[in-house]
Amino acid sequence: MKLFGYYRSSAAFRVRIALNLKGIQVDHHFVHLRKGEQSAPEYGALNPQGLIPLVLDGPHVLTQSLAIIEYLEETQPEPAVLPKTPLERARVRAIAQSIASDIHPLNNLRVLRYLVGPLKASDEAKNDWYRHWVVEGLTALEQTLTPAAGTGKFCHGDTPTLADICLVPQIYNAERADIDLSPFPRIMAVVGACRELRAFQDADPAKQADAE
Amino acid sequence: MKLFGYYRSSAAFRVRIALNLKGIQVDHHFVHLRKGEQSAPEYGALNPQGLIPLVLDGPHVLTQSLAIIEYLEETQPEPAVLPKTPLERARVRAIAQSIASDIHPLNNLRVLRYLVGPLKASDEAKNDWYRHWVVEGLTALEQTLTPAAGTGKFCHGDTPTLADICLVPQIYNAERADIDLSPFPRIMAVVGACRELRAFQDADPAKQADAE
Repeated sequence: MKLFGYYRSSAAFRVRIALNLKGIQVDHHFVHLRKGEQSAPEYGALNPQGLIPLVLDGPHVLTQSLAIIEYLEETQPEPAVLPKTPLERARVRAIAQSIASDIHPLNNLRVLRYLVGPLKASDEAKNDWYRHWVVEGLTALEQTLTPAAGTGKFCHGDTPTLADICLVPQIYNAERADIDLSPFPRIMAVVGACRELRAFQDADPAKQADAE
Repeated sequence: MKLFGYYRSSAAFRVRIALNLKGIQVDHHFVHLRKGEQSAPEYGALNPQGLIPLVLDGPHVLTQSLAIIEYLEETQPEPAVLPKTPLERARVRAIAQSIASDIHPLNNLRVLRYLVGPLKASDEAKNDWYRHWVVEGLTALEQTLTPAAGTGKFCHGDTPTLADICLVPQIYNAERADIDLSPFPRIMAVVGACRELRAFQDADPAKQADAE
């Protein structure tokens, strides 16, 4: 299996964590987003969206981090990153989606570039935008992560799931953006538990071969 | 089962289509987004994110459209909205995610309000933003929808899937925004096939009891 990623991409970071949790070895290929390598024709032939990550499983091309992780879960179920019951799975997927659809898409590189480019936003306005969506999303997530609803050591229960896989890269980004995370003690307790695990540590952007 | 939705919400539209395809009857509750009803304390107690749709299955609260649809698929598998094999499921989920994570989040109401509010974007700049992300996303999707990769009458094969469930509401939005869709003949052929089905017709925003 080959993973095309970029060390700072949250979506690639998610897939690295999932691969590590499942103990799946892959060949790493690097696509330098800031240098625009995702727009190269060779890469576009694999992924018309020009986004990362992308996984090659033999001749098969897989895109979109959450779809890739569901594929890994279906083809190598243990250790599981989704709980067993439909209701629990729905909760974990909802937390993952609340990050992957409602926070991260607003703050990724192509969007920030559009803000300062065509929209001519100042750096301050761009940073306010970034903070606004992160704080709004994490405020709701902090309320969601109640023990009554199923939160344990991790977002759901006491083993890491797809929800934690999405949460840790989002918090990595928030820390880089100097966002005050003290209003989110439940979130940060979960992130702390994740960061004790080798699977999360080894997936950290700073540890990747293409880190600058 | 109860569905809390809003006629024009793409995410609620997706859930309506899935419910109709599976023949699941629900009680409809309406949350008027433009009037801010999603911020009412009663609704916030159900969903801290203040987003729709939300499904109540007995006492259980389900949020996030794709997580809800995966739950419906797991609890009532037939008729299926995901194919059988992991590779095919990955392709369908990737198409769904490319819409739900890479197009729709940039163009929903709360984001457009931020653009013209705090960012003081002109209406023209807001419309350019809208068009930019839709055209970029649909251009990639048009390339993805090749028969060689599995596209049939629908995005994948000859029965509707989660991919079509996400596509039709996105095209509804694009049409409302007067975006030229002639460069996307494969997409529009799939949408045409969907619109021949009662499940898609009945989910249309104009047919909902809260439509204005």
